[in-house]
Amino acid sequence: MLFPPLQAALQRALALAEGAIGLTDPNPRVGCVILAPDGRELGSGHTQAAGQAHAEVMALRDAAARGHDVRGATAVVTLEPCSHHGRTPPCCDALINAGIARVVSAIQDPNPAVAGQGLARLRAAGVQVDEADPAIATAARELNIGFFSRMQRGRPFVRVKSAVSLDGRTALPDGRSHWITGDAARADGHAWRRRAGVILTGMGTVLADNPRLDVRLVPTAHQPLRVVLDPHGQMPTDARVLEAPGQARVLGPGHVDLAQLMQDLGAEGINEVHVEAGARLTGAVLAAGLADELLIYMAPLLIGPGMPLAHLQELAGLDTATRWQFLEATPIGQDLRLRLRPT
Amino acid sequence: MLFPPLQAALQRALALAEGAIGLTDPNPRVGCVILAPDGRELGSGHTQAAGQAHAEVMALRDAAARGHDVRGATAVVTLEPCSHHGRTPPCCDALINAGIARVVSAIQDPNPAVAGQGLARLRAAGVQVDEADPAIATAARELNIGFFSRMQRGRPFVRVKSAVSLDGRTALPDGRSHWITGDAARADGHAWRRRAGVILTGMGTVLADNPRLDVRLVPTAHQPLRVVLDPHGQMPTDARVLEAPGQARVLGPGHVDLAQLMQDLGAEGINEVHVEAGARLTGAVLAAGLADELLIYMAPLLIGPGMPLAHLQELAGLDTATRWQFLEATPIGQDLRLRLRPT
Repeated sequence: MLFPPLQAALQRALALAEGAIGLTDPNPRVGCVILAPDGRELGSGHTQAAGQAHAEVMALRDAAARGHDVRGATAVVTLEPCSHHGRTPPCCDALINAGIARVVSAIQDPNPAVAGQGLARLRAAGVQVDEADPAIATAARELNIGFFSRMQRGRPFVRVKSAVSLDGRTALPDGRSHWITGDAARADGHAWRRRAGVILTGMGTVLADNPRLDVRLVPTAHQPLRVVLDPHGQMPTDARVLEAPGQARVLGPGHVDLAQLMQDLGAEGINEVHVEAGARLTGAVLAAGLADELLIYMAPLLIGPGMPLAHLQELAGLDTATRWQFLEATPIGQDLRLRLRPT
Repeated sequence: MLFPPLQAALQRALALAEGAIGLTDPNPRVGCVILAPDGRELGSGHTQAAGQAHAEVMALRDAAARGHDVRGATAVVTLEPCSHHGRTPPCCDALINAGIARVVSAIQDPNPAVAGQGLARLRAAGVQVDEADPAIATAARELNIGFFSRMQRGRPFVRVKSAVSLDGRTALPDGRSHWITGDAARADGHAWRRRAGVILTGMGTVLADNPRLDVRLVPTAHQPLRVVLDPHGQMPTDARVLEAPGQARVLGPGHVDLAQLMQDLGAEGINEVHVEAGARLTGAVLAAGLADELLIYMAPLLIGPGMPLAHLQELAGLDTATRWQFLEATPIGQDLRLRLRPT
């Protein structure tokens, strides 16, 4: 267990890193707080857009701008400082050169080019290195779950979003779905869209709802790339999904292998894919075993006849169903946000 | 705001009243704690089976058995003491005769034969009477929600239970439903069954699942009456629902008007009806506007093709759907317990 002021600084650094969501892709979201030996905060910051300064450098600059001497200070970071020359010089060197005496790191970087070498390099330079408790490490990993997925599996983390009634309907039989969930749930859905590098949908949704699929109900520094699967070449030229802000990519006509698509998006540097689609594509992503998380907004009403959450093959038996586990069940306005991961 | 020791005594009295679930029907579940002027507990108790002692008398007897003098003491009760001669003499008189100086009551009795007259009678006898804060009053009402319903509306409180997948399925297309939810959810479901005077089901469920519909996964002092709607006279003589323990009543052949059934059950002294049925009867109870609460166990899996939670008429539009509100979303084992009430 770390000393409480360091725990508090880690929490603050995580909150700073949250502010980097939508800004740093394909790089991870990282926060850094520099503490004087007496616990005062000397500087803080988070990673900027790719190619610009990382969190450690931002925090060092902040301390300098505030006229603080950081020699002998402690740097608290939400991800192991990088040790390699990417688009910016290694943060390890920046910390060492600034005279930082101690580094507290929430979790090791899953990037094979770092992966513990950052911490080793700091130790070799005489810097005391401590790692955070598992709860903090988990929070730090969650914040960058897509980056971890891409580094460790070569593909993005895939979150499948749906808005359903208590009886699992996403729309009336004719496709009308405005609105099952309330304003708060829709805004919350945009906050999850914002985390993603790609919003993936299918032509059924485009033709039925003509959605924008951009991030507009919460502030954002970027718009995810919208990827639309259009196997039969039906995309209307005036579809809203093609309009600014942000970019759209139409895949088709022709069949797209979803597993290959995820590999390709990973190679492009996409960390998180947000699937917001109808029953057919949602079912295909599930059937392919590509869904890493279900994000379900459940509205407190019964629809009766209507569209299902996903088109799935009939089960041979209940014991053959894929089992998930609830991560959370959180009230959002009058609705409920459910998140699940595979067991 | 009552003095904290009195709040604590009210909580303790509510916990005692919980112990009367399954014991007191058609009477309410009531708890009583008697405190000395210095806050020591002198006696406590809860209502016994109908015709036997009420909570106040049990607490007075407990104090006597422990050798305590209750003159000048405070009686804390979860429901207004009764003022009328029912099957037992009025509790007000017992408290007055015992020399109780103060009564703290969580909520007024909705029984028209009491309804404030108990408190008035106490005050007339020189007893100080205080009523609890709204939060306590709400908890006291929830504990006896069926009794309040029957007194105020002439019919039981109707709770509709279902166990569904994330996509709102209660069974595979052939009716197999063993088991969607886990052991903990099934035991929790029995605890809710235990609160009820009647478990209501339909022949579809009897023929598909042959359930017992008794209370066996939690301890209970009684078995609810099982009522089966059998419009086409299909009840097998060896159906488990007809077996002991407890009693069963088969209604049919012929159509049963559900609203009339609820009135009749209310007249019989049934406080809570627990509907545990298939899509048809569940849909009929919902369509008749008789469902006061939805109790849904949601399992973390997707079923795809399967049986719906309820057969409902197609909605003209989403704005015409009945809106509910979530009372809770609570993890029970690996499942989620959702409770909703109409808005």
